[in-house]
Amino acid sequence: MAKELKELTKSEENYSQWYNDLVVKAGLAENSAVRGCMVIKPYGYAIWEKMHEILDRMFKQTGHQNAYFPLFIPKSFFSKEAHHVEGFAKECAVVTHYRLKNDPEGKGVVVDPDARLEEELIVRPTSETIIWNTYKNWIQSYRDLPILCNQWANVVRWEMRTRLFLRTAEFLWQEGHTAHATREEAIAEATKMINVYKDFAEKYMALPVIVGHKSPNERFAGAEDTLTIEALMQDGKALQSGTSHFLGQNFAKAFDVQFTNKEGKLDYVWATSWGVSTRLMGALIMAHSDNNGLVLPPALAPIQVVLVPIYKGEEQMRTIVAKLREVAATLEARGLSVKVDDRDNVRSGFKFAEYELKGVPVRLALGPRDLENGTIELMRRDTLEKETVSQEGLAERVENLMQEIQGNIFNKTKKFRDSMITRVDTWEEFVNVLDTKGGFISAHWDGTVETEVAIKEATKATIRCIPLDVVDEEGVCIYSGKPSHRRVLFARSY
Amino acid sequence: MAKELKELTKSEENYSQWYNDLVVKAGLAENSAVRGCMVIKPYGYAIWEKMHEILDRMFKQTGHQNAYFPLFIPKSFFSKEAHHVEGFAKECAVVTHYRLKNDPEGKGVVVDPDARLEEELIVRPTSETIIWNTYKNWIQSYRDLPILCNQWANVVRWEMRTRLFLRTAEFLWQEGHTAHATREEAIAEATKMINVYKDFAEKYMALPVIVGHKSPNERFAGAEDTLTIEALMQDGKALQSGTSHFLGQNFAKAFDVQFTNKEGKLDYVWATSWGVSTRLMGALIMAHSDNNGLVLPPALAPIQVVLVPIYKGEEQMRTIVAKLREVAATLEARGLSVKVDDRDNVRSGFKFAEYELKGVPVRLALGPRDLENGTIELMRRDTLEKETVSQEGLAERVENLMQEIQGNIFNKTKKFRDSMITRVDTWEEFVNVLDTKGGFISAHWDGTVETEVAIKEATKATIRCIPLDVVDEEGVCIYSGKPSHRRVLFARSY
Repeated sequence: MAKELKELTKSEENYSQWYNDLVVKAGLAENSAVRGCMVIKPYGYAIWEKMHEILDRMFKQTGHQNAYFPLFIPKSFFSKEAHHVEGFAKECAVVTHYRLKNDPEGKGVVVDPDARLEEELIVRPTSETIIWNTYKNWIQSYRDLPILCNQWANVVRWEMRTRLFLRTAEFLWQEGHTAHATREEAIAEATKMINVYKDFAEKYMALPVIVGHKSPNERFAGAEDTLTIEALMQDGKALQSGTSHFLGQNFAKAFDVQFTNKEGKLDYVWATSWGVSTRLMGALIMAHSDNNGLVLPPALAPIQVVLVPIYKGEEQMRTIVAKLREVAATLEARGLSVKVDDRDNVRSGFKFAEYELKGVPVRLALGPRDLENGTIELMRRDTLEKETVSQEGLAERVENLMQEIQGNIFNKTKKFRDSMITRVDTWEEFVNVLDTKGGFISAHWDGTVETEVAIKEATKATIRCIPLDVVDEEGVCIYSGKPSHRRVLFARSY
Repeated sequence: MAKELKELTKSEENYSQWYNDLVVKAGLAENSAVRGCMVIKPYGYAIWEKMHEILDRMFKQTGHQNAYFPLFIPKSFFSKEAHHVEGFAKECAVVTHYRLKNDPEGKGVVVDPDARLEEELIVRPTSETIIWNTYKNWIQSYRDLPILCNQWANVVRWEMRTRLFLRTAEFLWQEGHTAHATREEAIAEATKMINVYKDFAEKYMALPVIVGHKSPNERFAGAEDTLTIEALMQDGKALQSGTSHFLGQNFAKAFDVQFTNKEGKLDYVWATSWGVSTRLMGALIMAHSDNNGLVLPPALAPIQVVLVPIYKGEEQMRTIVAKLREVAATLEARGLSVKVDDRDNVRSGFKFAEYELKGVPVRLALGPRDLENGTIELMRRDTLEKETVSQEGLAERVENLMQEIQGNIFNKTKKFRDSMITRVDTWEEFVNVLDTKGGFISAHWDGTVETEVAIKEATKATIRCIPLDVVDEEGVCIYSGKPSHRRVLFARSY
């Protein structure tokens, strides 16, 4: 591990390699034998489980229930919503057969040509179509509305260039799908859920995000409006971290889902969908970590405090480990998740490096001198500051420190993010800031798809969002010179 | 709903239709547009979530961690373990392409023939092969062992005849996959986990099960030994409810997973795998329910207590609902999950029938006379007994009742199950008991596959298990007349 740690690429040398090294060496995930699909290892999965648990609680507190819909979607369902099929058809896994048979030539197994499906099935890249086909039978009257369902599931999008957590062929996510009697109610739901995502990102991931509307060109395929939370990574690139869509009546019309409203008239149902995925793991890792490894906010750290004994000889070890277990018990009593590392086949220096790599928020180390003095060495991962403190009142101190570290990580990240929002008013500035500084650029845009696409082609920067809290301001588009009524946020992104 | 309830088929008329009606009308699940795949509706999913949560805690308490492995398995992996491919090849969904394109004839979308995969991918029917291919890189020395991973996932087996929860093309499950340095340790793990399943079934599902070994012919494809828990349904058919496999070194050999043992020598790793699935939902429903609907054990009931107001006019409703909310708060304070049904568009009789259908363990109903007298009507779902009780001490009474109902459901089910284990010593008796009584038949078997298969062909009964607590007893096989050293359990099964 000490050796592996040395091999961790420095972020300033190669940010992309640094990220990949972190994910693999901290034991979060690795590539599998299946192109583009990852294995999420136990330590990585433990973080995802915490995210899952907290988000699930937030969804239930806002009135949602979980359900489960099929993995497969009949091909014909895709054609029903024109934009949707346009958006997803080019990257989906297609099941064509349902049986293998022994190779007549004796080489393993082959697909049985007699077991061809009448209609091909698509492995879901998202579930609007199968869910709205189901909702059709659940909805007759306004009394059946709203339907507020969420699903935790795996989805597949056949991405050509993949990267662990950020872009994988298969990923884990949740997808909320709600049905409403009115346009207003559906818009309110989409807004409510993007704010749930914002709260989750900021309070638990310690990740400041900007909430806004996507430009029409960047909307979800089939949506009338897409809301997004946009985060900034340490290399100055933006990362879309969650989206919530107002789908209008598009899917209700595609699947003929009508209801009798309070006035006794038939109308199409209004819809939203919203989702976050294991991509959040990528955001968490990239936003906070450093050249020593992960920096995990305490709210999502599988191990919040690690206790390491410093000793010579077996007898000393026994005494010190016993003391550490006592300390651990007082921490656990306060609801902290704690690990005593009593392995005797690796040195304490190795352990120190390992828990730094794994981003454990607080490390406590106890040696023979501490035992005499009633002290303990405390290191916090976010600042790497070490101090020797009294064992007395330690549990309360560590408990408070969790809040402090959580706040500090958020503030540090927010300070950086805020410093990386640059207002520019000319094309020259725009290009210059993009190439020398990066981050978000707040600039005027004429509102046309043509300009948006031209800017993307020229610079690889896209409109990340039109922030919800944007103020009206007259100006001219940095690219076309045409009039603009508000600034939008551009950035290069993952 | 009252109308729907009337349409619930009686179990004695058509057990299979009764089951299907229950699942659909109680809102647990329904068939989807995709052949053999079900939609798990919110009420059904809430029960599964409780199962998931309790099992997950039990796995973690026994030292396991969760991870996640790919949905897809390269076809060539299947050929590596001969029995495994034999067991699964005939029922698997095969992905052959990764893109759709617009139909040149303008009719929706078609599979793009240019996007054919070099090697087909199988949608996992179980994950031994992809996991052991991964473990290969995780294991070098005995210090890397044991690996104790579990995965919560969806799997696909292309069953020709499907039935909601009991046998579906896609289902949800957990699969544990462990790696060990010794044969003994792996056998101990497989035994430990079948006992976790037994505890879960008996304590939480109120479902008595028999633990035993499968006969060689009924083993998991690739296992050296399969342990099973077998439950009995009310129609006298058995249901395999969970299995735990000792895989020997089969998968380690197939994927070349070797480790250096304590003596410094290379050896193949020993393996287990174990799983339970949404099939448990089927077991839960079939084992306890009656002609009024579901009977849920309190430990798994999403709603444990429902409170229904009985009133005339709006003012009375307000007063009574307010009182019910007070009562509900005292129940919630004891950790019970509670619902006050204040809908004003359906009658209380409709509500009563609905919660009976949904299997809510306790129903409380409060009318104007109760309000005067300080009483409340209490009905328990398991016995359908009603009594009027004092509001005083109600919360404690209901809390205790949860234990009592849980115990009563278990005892009733166990009493029935025990009455349905018949010892027979002749072939005539065997056939007669199967046809007139059903249930488990404890009989001598000569230990050969030929006899087992012949009995199955003659009667559709299979060896459910060789119970762990079987006693040695000399006898002769009911079919072949050859010598036998112990009895085994036969039954017809789902």
